[in-house]
Amino acid sequence: MKVKERLFTPGPVPLPPEVIKALGQQIIHHRTPEFTKAFMEVREKLKRLLKTERAPVMFASSGTGSMEAAVTNFFRRGDRVLVINAGKFGQRWRDLAKTFELKVVDYEIEWGKTYDRERILEIIGEFPDIKGILVQHSETSTTTLHDVNYLAEVCKKLDDCILVVDGITSIGVYEVYPEEIGIDVLVTGSQKALMLPPGLSILWFSEKAEERLEKSDIGKYYFSVLSEVKKQEKGQTAYTPAINLILALNESLNLILEEGLPQLARRHEVMAKATREALKEIGLKLLSESPANSATGAYAPAGIDADEFRKVLLKLGFRVAGGQDHLKGKIFRIAHMGYFDVMDIVQVIAGVEFALEKIGYTVEIGKGVRKAQEIVLEYI
Amino acid sequence: MKVKERLFTPGPVPLPPEVIKALGQQIIHHRTPEFTKAFMEVREKLKRLLKTERAPVMFASSGTGSMEAAVTNFFRRGDRVLVINAGKFGQRWRDLAKTFELKVVDYEIEWGKTYDRERILEIIGEFPDIKGILVQHSETSTTTLHDVNYLAEVCKKLDDCILVVDGITSIGVYEVYPEEIGIDVLVTGSQKALMLPPGLSILWFSEKAEERLEKSDIGKYYFSVLSEVKKQEKGQTAYTPAINLILALNESLNLILEEGLPQLARRHEVMAKATREALKEIGLKLLSESPANSATGAYAPAGIDADEFRKVLLKLGFRVAGGQDHLKGKIFRIAHMGYFDVMDIVQVIAGVEFALEKIGYTVEIGKGVRKAQEIVLEYI
Repeated sequence: MKVKERLFTPGPVPLPPEVIKALGQQIIHHRTPEFTKAFMEVREKLKRLLKTERAPVMFASSGTGSMEAAVTNFFRRGDRVLVINAGKFGQRWRDLAKTFELKVVDYEIEWGKTYDRERILEIIGEFPDIKGILVQHSETSTTTLHDVNYLAEVCKKLDDCILVVDGITSIGVYEVYPEEIGIDVLVTGSQKALMLPPGLSILWFSEKAEERLEKSDIGKYYFSVLSEVKKQEKGQTAYTPAINLILALNESLNLILEEGLPQLARRHEVMAKATREALKEIGLKLLSESPANSATGAYAPAGIDADEFRKVLLKLGFRVAGGQDHLKGKIFRIAHMGYFDVMDIVQVIAGVEFALEKIGYTVEIGKGVRKAQEIVLEYI
Repeated sequence: MKVKERLFTPGPVPLPPEVIKALGQQIIHHRTPEFTKAFMEVREKLKRLLKTERAPVMFASSGTGSMEAAVTNFFRRGDRVLVINAGKFGQRWRDLAKTFELKVVDYEIEWGKTYDRERILEIIGEFPDIKGILVQHSETSTTTLHDVNYLAEVCKKLDDCILVVDGITSIGVYEVYPEEIGIDVLVTGSQKALMLPPGLSILWFSEKAEERLEKSDIGKYYFSVLSEVKKQEKGQTAYTPAINLILALNESLNLILEEGLPQLARRHEVMAKATREALKEIGLKLLSESPANSATGAYAPAGIDADEFRKVLLKLGFRVAGGQDHLKGKIFRIAHMGYFDVMDIVQVIAGVEFALEKIGYTVEIGKGVRKAQEIVLEYI
């Protein structure tokens, strides 16, 4: 059977036609008024996206580059930080912090769960010198949402603490307004809900975080925020920028802002809810106790290898992600962030039903799809 | 007058149609056999480009990222290095080395000149503990070629020295075979003679350099060569790769290898010679005493501001680069690396003649063009 391939992985996600068109063009030079104009437009649109007057800086790197910049620019060697370590990307915060000689309070959490408020209070009681809390807003490896509002409150209770948030799979999915929430450093990457290829990362920081820039004693050059701020305010970059990704971002931000941020958040909420409820209706168990709206993880039925199930699903055209580390072969993850609509969800759920049936797990065909449709119907 | 814009800047350079086509496509996922196949093909082609059995690693960054990786992965804090500092990019080696706590012997050279062999011998006599020599093969800011063969010989005379070469505007212009030359670490970027947009950098290292990887005590994470080597050998990357640039590189390397490396080097030699001789014929003075084949710099005639001249040239459709720092307003630079042919040179020289005439510097129209044609004729 000939099928179309459909990408439902949590990054990269499908590109809208407007982005593909912007990418497939002859290059322009970056030291030109034309590029500077586009760059400044992107800055303005990013400010609207984050509801702030402070423009973020951009780096030619994948999201991990901006995570590194968050660690190396806003701390000093030996600073103590609390890492909310609840998955693959929580581990990355921990590893980055250790690499650059921070003292890490590693709050390890079972994958699929979020932090416990009591435990957080115990930790800050024990370590009142914590200089930063590092967290994923949405932990992609476990499709889990961490409440960043509460962590912002906690941070404010401490003497000198900043809240550092990996928003790689939450920006463009939720309304993430760092000043309203109380986030000090917020990073994201291009290949998630911003609907671009990988290779561009974005870092926003608060006034409070800015005060730390001059004081930081950790070595950095390519990811020096100070070097970039000075240049990017004028529509240039310290080193050659990812020109075609910036031009494409100018297009994808149009799509995001034209839809409107509350509508965009609502669309993602509905897509996520429809996916979750449909999978439950089919009889599957969700991975996360605090599921995010960017992607949904679920366990394969007992006795079925999740990666085998994914192969069957791929034959039907649907590429979904598997589990990492100890979750490998146990779970699958369906992304629904960025260039997806509610009809995509109806379709992928139908695919999941078919694939389960094919692999020998009996399902009532159409049951999950109907559930997804019912939820979507309230929205359309 | 309506004209086409023609890019003659030393990076980014024009993209071939094959590359534009590869870029303007729907994204594929990087954890797939399809991507791994392309990635492994790129590795094989890069090995042919560099005439080696050792594949380089790739980073999602501009060229400066791989320069940083060269400093942070192959040295220890406090190591002494000699920097050949003859321009903007020589300064970058110096700044990178200082940022990451190396001891720098800063051999400052007047812009437009190359190093002096006697002086090099004096320096290594004074500092026999030098652990590395950092140089640009082609210093783009001054359009100057530095002889790396001699520096390789010098390095071998020392106890424990590696030769670190910025090949950003020499790879794809010259035949740069690191093992034949004796280069230990060689870096390049995508937006020069590899004919791609910026956002991908490449780092090759020798067996001798490899021994240092485990010993280095400088903090790095995103640019960790060890992390990448382990993954890239298997066709994956430690962090999300610049997917569409890697797919496009697979195309541009086809163009390079189909032309053949000796032919490619010869084409660049002819284009550079034609540009240089034509400019001299017009009466202009070249910037460099050791001119590179990637770009040609020349002084504007006495009394004429080079940037004003460039504006006139731009009105005729030709975008060339200016001078940096103290050379600003004094010089202009015409790139001829990557997707250029000999006819482009004839054309840009005609443009230079027109622009000089327009700005009030009397030239014998056609004189420079004829010179360029004569040189090109020997080649075609």
